[in-house]
Amino acid sequence: MTTPITNTYTVAGMTCAHCVSSVTEEVSEIDGVLEVAVDLPSGVVTITSEQLLPDDSVRAAVEEAGYQLQ
Amino acid sequence: MTTPITNTYTVAGMTCAHCVSSVTEEVSEIDGVLEVAVDLPSGVVTITSEQLLPDDSVRAAVEEAGYQLQ
Repeated sequence: MTTPITNTYTVAGMTCAHCVSSVTEEVSEIDGVLEVAVDLPSGVVTITSEQLLPDDSVRAAVEEAGYQLQ
Repeated sequence: MTTPITNTYTVAGMTCAHCVSSVTEEVSEIDGVLEVAVDLPSGVVTITSEQLLPDDSVRAAVEEAGYQLQ
């Protein structure tokens, strides 16, 4: 097993627990994602994954949830 | 058929479209409710119903959704 990679992103527009849930669900579906943690006040999303994720896949997941990557 | 009654309530804490959706769903389940309209910026919830709704049932539905009636 390779060592997991942790990266942080900032997502704009999340205002409540439902928003956190939507983003977490979409990001969790990206291939290789092991863990997703969202800090609502700051908008920081911490993603732990098996391999480095293409920025485009993270951006697409966040937009699918209805938000924007900053 | 009796004439429908329209009443407005103010709900605190709704911050996004998911919140509106949660409140609409819960209030719609109250017996006799015909239509629910939520204005997010003001928190005003307009409920059209077949008969006058007990305040307690509206309060309970709003709290079930995770918000407070003002």
